[in-house]
Amino acid sequence: MSKKIRIGIVGYGNLGRGVELAISQNEDMELVGVFTRRDPEQLTLATDAPKYRVEDAAGMQGEIDVMILCGGSATDLAVQGPQFAAQFHTVDSFDTHAKIPEYFAAMDKTARENGKVAAISVGWDPGLFSINRAYGDAILPQGKTYTFWGRGVSQGHSDAIRRVKGVKNGIQYTIPIEDAVERVRTGEDPELTTRQKHLRECFVVAEEGADHAAIEQEIKTMPNYFSDYDTIVHFITEEELKAEHSAMPHGGFVIRSGKTGKDRNTKHIVEYSLKLDSNPEFTSSVLVAYARAVYRLAQAGQSGAVTVLDIAPAMLSPKDGAQLRKELL
Amino acid sequence: MSKKIRIGIVGYGNLGRGVELAISQNEDMELVGVFTRRDPEQLTLATDAPKYRVEDAAGMQGEIDVMILCGGSATDLAVQGPQFAAQFHTVDSFDTHAKIPEYFAAMDKTARENGKVAAISVGWDPGLFSINRAYGDAILPQGKTYTFWGRGVSQGHSDAIRRVKGVKNGIQYTIPIEDAVERVRTGEDPELTTRQKHLRECFVVAEEGADHAAIEQEIKTMPNYFSDYDTIVHFITEEELKAEHSAMPHGGFVIRSGKTGKDRNTKHIVEYSLKLDSNPEFTSSVLVAYARAVYRLAQAGQSGAVTVLDIAPAMLSPKDGAQLRKELL
Repeated sequence: MSKKIRIGIVGYGNLGRGVELAISQNEDMELVGVFTRRDPEQLTLATDAPKYRVEDAAGMQGEIDVMILCGGSATDLAVQGPQFAAQFHTVDSFDTHAKIPEYFAAMDKTARENGKVAAISVGWDPGLFSINRAYGDAILPQGKTYTFWGRGVSQGHSDAIRRVKGVKNGIQYTIPIEDAVERVRTGEDPELTTRQKHLRECFVVAEEGADHAAIEQEIKTMPNYFSDYDTIVHFITEEELKAEHSAMPHGGFVIRSGKTGKDRNTKHIVEYSLKLDSNPEFTSSVLVAYARAVYRLAQAGQSGAVTVLDIAPAMLSPKDGAQLRKELL
Repeated sequence: MSKKIRIGIVGYGNLGRGVELAISQNEDMELVGVFTRRDPEQLTLATDAPKYRVEDAAGMQGEIDVMILCGGSATDLAVQGPQFAAQFHTVDSFDTHAKIPEYFAAMDKTARENGKVAAISVGWDPGLFSINRAYGDAILPQGKTYTFWGRGVSQGHSDAIRRVKGVKNGIQYTIPIEDAVERVRTGEDPELTTRQKHLRECFVVAEEGADHAAIEQEIKTMPNYFSDYDTIVHFITEEELKAEHSAMPHGGFVIRSGKTGKDRNTKHIVEYSLKLDSNPEFTSSVLVAYARAVYRLAQAGQSGAVTVLDIAPAMLSPKDGAQLRKELL
């Protein structure tokens, strides 16, 4: 085997830990170290990889081929992204859809100026779902694309619940409405409102003596987060929350429904679906496969920002072209 | 709008007709002509596109950007492929899996020597299914990939039925066995025999006075085609065959089941499925989208043979990078 691809991880939350474990599933990669803003001494890793302060990274440019940025979009990546893209080839999971054009521009400029490749918004949505939206849109130009999410935990909505007065803890599941999914699958091409596509189900731990009815009312009427949806609120104990809601499952569907033929009445349904027991572990696995692609693009002399839409499927695989054609084509 | 991509079609069967119609769904393309081995005068097209003899193509290199080869793998493409790849950028749907490495080598050599791009084995399997097998394999390295086909018409098996003595006409449907699909979807990772994955259902028109029992027996025991499967044989009239079995529906599923995490016990299921009312019309739509990609690769100065695994999703879309990132990422 040729030289392994040397990976660094920036940030050690659920995603960083997932990347650490995913690297161990890929024989052509090795983990050089985990970079943290916390005290490395206090960090317990899943493997025996070296731990560093995030400031130590700057001196290790020759030791790392690709840096996987595992911070969140909201606060970390906007700053960390361009900072690291000036020094390393990077992969990140920037997922604030509305800010992607702006983030792409910033990463592209920095990466280009420094001869680096920066793959942004890698994961499953944005990411694998985007790829499927793009293929569907290009192959069946007369059609409609539907994206459904869940059943899965929405971090943003869970955070919103926890900010409600009287709420001690809580979690929110986004649930696709089966009837809507079925209508799309049969090629009916329905116009669906927000409320018709997804349900929101909340499991709330209230503080002692808090007014449950008031909490429920505040959640259900919260603008942007809940008011456009049918929302179910359950009150449970902290113990129940820990016991039954610690996993982070997620998933969803991208369905393209299109028509072809002389009279445009031949129907086709293309569906891509994910059923994930752990959202961060799966997202991490996607990040690691794209780190391989970034390494190859860099080896080929490319620079600048790219997304999953710019990367050919073969670039993700440890197998070469001949093997891929023989085994998977 | 900038200059349209000028497309030629070689061969006018179901696939050629599908390509002709698909081009009319793409505003950035125009059909220069259909090239046939038959007498062009005798050919009735779906549109008013010009008709040419296949020999006329050689003199039209300056008028066509991409030639879509719509012949069959078994006989046409092995000869036509390299012949056209010497003169045009091409897209074809070569689908004899076992011969792909050999065909790729031949097309790559000719295309490279002549500065052409040749996209081979484009369609849904090989094609979109291959892409999904490759993504699944790269993202979830510890896992299993399952491909199911159907319910749909298999041309090869239908031909095999028609060769049986006493058979006047017939059609064969490949049907995935629901129980097997469900076991895969739940992440059970079953070992499945050929017989456990697919059923074969035949609709046969017998010649007058033919021995139905003998026909049924010969079909069910036919090696390679039917003997490894549970096969159902129905006898119907020529009228029933025409009325109920003229459409060419197809489809299928690629399912990747994989595990991640410290103890490799977190399960993920990735499923890609197609439900197509017309196999040739959908395949044609895929060919046309890849013609756009081939045009772009050629514009970028690339040459040689490529497959769907070598082409980034964005290359298929008429939309530019900024629009794709904004609308579909």
